[in-house]
Amino acid sequence: MKKAVVLLSGGLDSTTCLYWARKKGYKTFALLFDYGQRHRKEILCARRIAEMCHTPYHVVRFALPWGKNALVGRSVHLPKGRQPEEMVTGAIPPTYVPARNTLFLSFALSYADAVGPACRPRYIQAMRNVALLGTKSGVEGKKIEILAPLIRMSKSQIVRLGARLGVPFNKTWSCYAGGRRPCGQCDSCVLREKGFQESGFGLKILKEKR
Amino acid sequence: MKKAVVLLSGGLDSTTCLYWARKKGYKTFALLFDYGQRHRKEILCARRIAEMCHTPYHVVRFALPWGKNALVGRSVHLPKGRQPEEMVTGAIPPTYVPARNTLFLSFALSYADAVGPACRPRYIQAMRNVALLGTKSGVEGKKIEILAPLIRMSKSQIVRLGARLGVPFNKTWSCYAGGRRPCGQCDSCVLREKGFQESGFGLKILKEKR
Repeated sequence: MKKAVVLLSGGLDSTTCLYWARKKGYKTFALLFDYGQRHRKEILCARRIAEMCHTPYHVVRFALPWGKNALVGRSVHLPKGRQPEEMVTGAIPPTYVPARNTLFLSFALSYADAVGPACRPRYIQAMRNVALLGTKSGVEGKKIEILAPLIRMSKSQIVRLGARLGVPFNKTWSCYAGGRRPCGQCDSCVLREKGFQESGFGLKILKEKR
Repeated sequence: MKKAVVLLSGGLDSTTCLYWARKKGYKTFALLFDYGQRHRKEILCARRIAEMCHTPYHVVRFALPWGKNALVGRSVHLPKGRQPEEMVTGAIPPTYVPARNTLFLSFALSYADAVGPACRPRYIQAMRNVALLGTKSGVEGKKIEILAPLIRMSKSQIVRLGARLGVPFNKTWSCYAGGRRPCGQCDSCVLREKGFQESGFGLKILKEKR
C-alpha cells in the first residue's frame, strides 16, 4: 500500500487533498504545523479531521523569529474586504510567510523519508529534485513523489471535487482571523465564498460551523 | 553590501564557512538549530563563535517526532571507532536525520527571504531552483544565491582554508557525543582528526578545549 504524507491545515484545499489521497488508495499520514498562527482554530480543525479519517498525524512546532506578517502574531494588519481580483494580480500579500511552503514541504520530505514511501508546478518540480537528491530514500533509489493534485484547479473545482469525495466542509476552517465564526472579509474567506458560489452548490455548504 | 545567511553548527566546516563569507565581504547572519540534539555543546559553541564575529544570529527550534537517529535523543547507538573508509562507502549512517539539510536550507531560505538577500552540488542546484521559485524574493526577481564554498573540499583542505582565515579551531565542536571533551571515537571526531593530520598542521590545533 503506497503511503502519502498530507500537509493538513484544516482548510478546504488540504482537507480535499487528504480525501483525494484516501480515495486514491494511499495510506495517509498528516502533518499539521504550529508556527505561531494568530489563532489555534485551524490546528484544532485539522486534528479533528485527521481523527475522523483515522489518519495518523504529527503537529510540528517551529517559530520563525523573522519576517513579520499578518498570519503570525498581531503586529501586521490582516487585510479585509479585498476582491478576488485584487489578490491574484501578482502582488505578494501581507499574509506571506517567508518560504513557508518550502518549510512545509521540507518537513513533509523529512516525514516521508522517515515513514518510508505533496503550489506552482515548476516549484513542485524543483522540490521533486530536492526529494530525489536530498533524502536517504531518494539516494537509495526509493521513490518519494510530491503529488499536487489540486495545483491546476480553481477554488470552485476544488469544491466540486471535495463534494464528490465527501469532504466535511463544515469541519474545515479557512478564515485567517480567529473569531468564533469566519470573518467573511479576509482574503481566504472571500476566495472560499467565491469558490462555493461558482461551484454551483451555492452557499448551503459554505458555512463553517463550530 | 551583500548579505549571507550562514548555517552555523559550531563545528569545523560551518565555522570555516562563516569566516569565508566574512572574508569575501558579506554581511553575515547566522542560523543555529536546536532540534533536540543529544547535547547542547554545539549550540553553545556556535553562539560563542557568532558573538565573537559580531554576527547576528537566531536559534531555530524545531522537533522531528519521527526518524529516530543517533544524533537526537539517546535511543540509537552512536557508532564509535569507525575508520574513515567505513564512513564514505555509501551507506547512510545511524546519525542520519531525515532530510535535515533540506530543513536547514529551507529555514535559511526563509531567513534570507526575510532579511533580503547560502552538500552535494546537484542537490544545491535543486535547492537553488527552490530558492528561485519558492520565495518572494525569487519571484520578485531578487537574487537569493546558495553558496557552498567547501562543497568540493576534503576535510584537510577545509582545515588549511580555516587556518588561513584565522578560524578559532579550539572554539569549534565537532564531536557527536556531549562529553566534557571530544570522545575521539565517533565518526565526526575521526574525520576531524584525519583532516588535521592530513592538513600538515598535525594535531597541535586539533584539541577542542572547553
